[in-house]
Amino acid sequence: MRALRLHGAKDLRLEEVPEPELRPGTVKIKVEWAGICGTDLHNYTHPMVPDDYIHPLFGEHGPHVQGHEFSGRITAVADDVPDLPVGALVAVEPLMSDGTCPACLRGDYNLCESFGFVGIMGGGGGMSEYVVVPGHRIHLIPEGISAETAALIEPLSVAWHAVRRSGLQPGDSAVVIGAGPIGLGLLMAAKAQGAGFVAVSEVSAARKRLASQFGADAVFDPTRDDVAARVHAAVPGGVRASFEASGAGTPAVQALLGVLAKGGTAITVASGHPAEFDPNALMTTEINYTGSFGYNASDFPGVIEAIRDGRIRPDALVTSRISLEDAQQQGYEALLNHGDAQVKVLVHP
Amino acid sequence: MRALRLHGAKDLRLEEVPEPELRPGTVKIKVEWAGICGTDLHNYTHPMVPDDYIHPLFGEHGPHVQGHEFSGRITAVADDVPDLPVGALVAVEPLMSDGTCPACLRGDYNLCESFGFVGIMGGGGGMSEYVVVPGHRIHLIPEGISAETAALIEPLSVAWHAVRRSGLQPGDSAVVIGAGPIGLGLLMAAKAQGAGFVAVSEVSAARKRLASQFGADAVFDPTRDDVAARVHAAVPGGVRASFEASGAGTPAVQALLGVLAKGGTAITVASGHPAEFDPNALMTTEINYTGSFGYNASDFPGVIEAIRDGRIRPDALVTSRISLEDAQQQGYEALLNHGDAQVKVLVHP
Repeated sequence: MRALRLHGAKDLRLEEVPEPELRPGTVKIKVEWAGICGTDLHNYTHPMVPDDYIHPLFGEHGPHVQGHEFSGRITAVADDVPDLPVGALVAVEPLMSDGTCPACLRGDYNLCESFGFVGIMGGGGGMSEYVVVPGHRIHLIPEGISAETAALIEPLSVAWHAVRRSGLQPGDSAVVIGAGPIGLGLLMAAKAQGAGFVAVSEVSAARKRLASQFGADAVFDPTRDDVAARVHAAVPGGVRASFEASGAGTPAVQALLGVLAKGGTAITVASGHPAEFDPNALMTTEINYTGSFGYNASDFPGVIEAIRDGRIRPDALVTSRISLEDAQQQGYEALLNHGDAQVKVLVHP
Repeated sequence: MRALRLHGAKDLRLEEVPEPELRPGTVKIKVEWAGICGTDLHNYTHPMVPDDYIHPLFGEHGPHVQGHEFSGRITAVADDVPDLPVGALVAVEPLMSDGTCPACLRGDYNLCESFGFVGIMGGGGGMSEYVVVPGHRIHLIPEGISAETAALIEPLSVAWHAVRRSGLQPGDSAVVIGAGPIGLGLLMAAKAQGAGFVAVSEVSAARKRLASQFGADAVFDPTRDDVAARVHAAVPGGVRASFEASGAGTPAVQALLGVLAKGGTAITVASGHPAEFDPNALMTTEINYTGSFGYNASDFPGVIEAIRDGRIRPDALVTSRISLEDAQQQGYEALLNHGDAQVKVLVHP
């Protein structure tokens, strides 16, 4: 089959590789659509996994097939996997865990000591015709949700998990910093989980328009506005939750903490630059500053239900649909060089 | 009556001032012992309250009487204050709040938008013969607890509140950075709230000995030990809670986060220097980084009960007992210049 594999920095090759084989506990999927995310771009320019490294959960060295945000249809099911019919449209949780560490035993499998992502660290990936994944990481997609939309469930689940972690209550106000795919997902997830006023801080004109389109109650530009002051003017006392999805370092962290009410929660969702900050800003306010990583058991189901009942309508995130042949130039390179004009690029293998 | 008032940087004066008068809702107390804390020292060298500033909760300009950690005996009670007998030994919560802001209405009166401390911002203070305070900020001290010990309840409540905020569960491990009065209080409060292994990081030899004496399971020296590595060697995977009571900026923040297990909680308790840090350290670990400020309704009672039943035995915190006449030289100046040799200095007006 054809697969897009990473051989080194900016060295993606479309190659013929053996089809993966069904094993006990797994399901074979014909990929429909695979998205490209910020982590993929970082991995493309600064490969995170040396070719000779063998991840304990995947047991294979590189080069690895790319793509961890994908939907597809089941083509084969191992005998010991229940309730997954051949032909069904599914979304795949690519975050694998060992199931035995303290975090896994608590249910926080995203914090597994030896977590690994299909499509980054081994185990095949969405940038190929077929993938074989454990049956317990498969989610059936209800009628009425397309394969394209299903490929958005993974990044939306990252946002959903972050909003869950924030403890946002119905009616609470929030701020999202950065309106890329994750930032827009945070806006949608916050609204779907009952947020009241949600403001977005973003520089790019195209992404500002998308933020408004996806329901932002206010959109501020950190190059022109004092975001913390504008937010406090709109919500006296400050908001209950803020989310950092820009990776912009010190100014983003200052805004993240500056917009909050006392006792509020700030969440870093995007990896980014180191930052300077004043721990006193946490002390006198009892602000909670934390991070959110991936997703666990309730997040994919939460997003699927929110799409099904119309609380999340994410399709406008998709700004481009391309083939596997065009993935490097019209996908990875286009996002690196003209990222502001794109949000989510989907690849059809 | 005699009172120690702050007229400017390092300008403390023992003066004759009018005795405060009982008002509705208040209790008059003859002070027994008043402690000097880090905030007092900071206020002494860098006065926080301009003389002409009038705090809304106190309605008076400076110079203000100092001392917010104090015990005393009730000498008079307003008619509308129930259940507080004349002669009773009491500890006073000096943190006043307006009772009407959103935080107050949630019970988080330490986060009141217009909080103020008796003994810093007005309302008299423990460095005088008499204080008049609202009856609802008075805690009766049970038989068997001395007036000296009762003066330690305020700083211990700061530590108690921080440990409560950490979500520490019985048997959980913890790390305390800095073994001054608050750090040692954190160690005691963590043990009293059921902590298992508790390590302390401290530079001063005298304070290291105190940490051992107060029950630290390990004491590390950040000038010699890689504290994070030592903690991970002692507790594989890292501890569930860490507390910053040194104010030492970047290295302290790095240790604070570095000692934690994934999903653990870091709490800044001491004000201190700005720090550089990497938000990614919060993201992939879902570490919760927060602060703790003062105390609210359950903290003084929690400490009093822990002292009463022997879980906290704090008397060795007191390293010096002095008179009001000697407070500036043997108290404030001694702590500034020879702080390592002292932990808690108590003043008897």
